[in-house]
Amino acid sequence: MSGSERRRRPAGNIQLDSRPTLTTTDGNRNITEVDALDRRLPDRRGTLADRNNLKRSLTDLGFEVRHFDDLKAEDVLQKIYEASKDDHSNADCFVCVFLSHGEDDHIYAYDAQIKIQAITDMFRGDKCQSLVGKPKIFIIQACRGDKHDDPVIAQDSIDSSNESIVNETEVDAAGVYTLPAGADFIMCYSVAQGYFSHRETVNGSWYIQDLCEALGKHGSSLEFTELLTVVNRKVSYRKVDMCRDINAIGKKQIPCFASMLTKKLYFHPKSK
Amino acid sequence: MSGSERRRRPAGNIQLDSRPTLTTTDGNRNITEVDALDRRLPDRRGTLADRNNLKRSLTDLGFEVRHFDDLKAEDVLQKIYEASKDDHSNADCFVCVFLSHGEDDHIYAYDAQIKIQAITDMFRGDKCQSLVGKPKIFIIQACRGDKHDDPVIAQDSIDSSNESIVNETEVDAAGVYTLPAGADFIMCYSVAQGYFSHRETVNGSWYIQDLCEALGKHGSSLEFTELLTVVNRKVSYRKVDMCRDINAIGKKQIPCFASMLTKKLYFHPKSK
Repeated sequence: MSGSERRRRPAGNIQLDSRPTLTTTDGNRNITEVDALDRRLPDRRGTLADRNNLKRSLTDLGFEVRHFDDLKAEDVLQKIYEASKDDHSNADCFVCVFLSHGEDDHIYAYDAQIKIQAITDMFRGDKCQSLVGKPKIFIIQACRGDKHDDPVIAQDSIDSSNESIVNETEVDAAGVYTLPAGADFIMCYSVAQGYFSHRETVNGSWYIQDLCEALGKHGSSLEFTELLTVVNRKVSYRKVDMCRDINAIGKKQIPCFASMLTKKLYFHPKSK
Repeated sequence: MSGSERRRRPAGNIQLDSRPTLTTTDGNRNITEVDALDRRLPDRRGTLADRNNLKRSLTDLGFEVRHFDDLKAEDVLQKIYEASKDDHSNADCFVCVFLSHGEDDHIYAYDAQIKIQAITDMFRGDKCQSLVGKPKIFIIQACRGDKHDDPVIAQDSIDSSNESIVNETEVDAAGVYTLPAGADFIMCYSVAQGYFSHRETVNGSWYIQDLCEALGKHGSSLEFTELLTVVNRKVSYRKVDMCRDINAIGKKQIPCFASMLTKKLYFHPKSK
C-alpha cells in the first residue's frame, strides 16, 4: 500500500501544562502527589517530565506537536478555538492533551477553571468540518473528584483468554452519508470519574508515564483502545508507596477512556 | 484447552425495564421516539422488543438472564443489592442492563430517579469481592440529556486501515497483587453524555437493535470493545426518518462506552 497512499500531515496537537514546574525542595525524592485542587493550586511537580515524555512519544508517531505552558483560561480557550478553526484536511487525526489540576467535569487553567465540554464542543462535526469522520482524541491528566480509590486483593487470575482472534469489522459501503456531530471522539482520562489522579514529583504522573511507555512499545502497531486497555492495566497495578499523606499509602487508581469512535484506530507509520 | 478449562457459570444478569409496554395506537407504525423525560414519563413503546432481543442475545452467549419490569426505585435498588451480594465465584462476568428514561447521570425507575453511580458502586471491589478482577458490564439504554445530535456530511471515507494487526497484550506475571476497587467496569451507554437516545416504537431502540445484531454476529468471537465500536458505527449511520416532531427529522445519535477494563474481553463459547 505504501507509496500510493495519500500522505496526511497529522494535525496540530495542543498540549497544555497549566501549572509551572518548580525545582523540588525534597532533594528530588520521587514522592506521589494528587492532582486535586487544594485551597490554592499547588505546583504540579513532575509535569515537565510528562510534557517531555508525551512530546517525544507523539512526535515519534508522526504527530506535529505544539505545547503551551501555564496559560490563563481565556488564552487556553483562544488557542483551542484557533486549533478548531485550522484546516485539518491533510491531517488524519487530532490530539489535545491537558496536564493540570481538575475536579469533576472541569480542568484548571492558570487562573480559572474550564469545563471540558466547552473544549470538545469546538471540534464537533458541525463546528470543525475538516475533522469530520476523523478521530478526535482528548487526553486529560487531572483529578476528577476527591475520592481515593482503595486496593482490593485480586483473586486467582481469571482465565480470560488472551488469544487474539482476528475479526475484520465490516465497513458498510457508503457513498454520501451523514454522521452525528458528536461522533469519532475519544476521551482518555487518567482516572475514573470522582477520583484522585496520582503524579510522582520526579517521574511524572502514573497515567502519562504508562501511556507514553505503551505508545513507545505499541503505538504504531496496536489498536488505540487496546493500547489504552494496556494502560488501564499498568496503572491499576500501581499503588502509593511514598507520600506525605500517610492515609494515602496503598491507594490505587484506574484510568478510564470513553469512546465514541466509529472505527478502529491505528497510528500506522507514515510513508514519506 | 476445552475440557480442562474450569467452567464458570455466567453471573446473573439483571435487565430492568422500568416502563410498561402498551399496545401501539398508531396501527403499529414504526415511528421514532426519544427516551427523555417528558412532563410525565411516557410509555416506552418498543421496549418489549429490546428486552426480548437482549434476553435472546445474552442467553445465546451463555448468560443466565433474569429480568424485572417496571420496578419502583426502592425495589430496583433492592434487586441490585441482592445481585451484588450473590456469590459470583463461579461466574466470569456480570452484566446489568437498564432500558428506561434518563437524564444526565441518572435513570428512571417506575416512580423515581436513581443515580447510575449508586448502582455501580455496589459492585466495586471493596463491596463485591467475588467479582474482583472480572468484567462488570453496565448497559444503559436511556437519554442522557436534552440535546439532539445533528447530522454532518462525512467526507471521503478516511483511509484508516482495516488490517487487523495481531498483537498480544502483555500480562504481567503476578502472584498476589491488588487492583483498584473501581477497576474492570465498562459502561455501555446508548448515547453520548448530554444527548437524546432514540427508540423505534415497534423495533425497539436503535442502540439495543444494533447491539443485539452485533452480539449475534460477533458476540462469541470479537473482543467486546471492538464489538461496541461496530455498534457505535452502526448507530451513527442511522437518522430519524419518521417522527411526530418535525424538527427531529434527520437527527442523529452516537453511543459511547467508558472502559475501565484491564484486559481484553471475549465471550468465548463455554465448554460444557
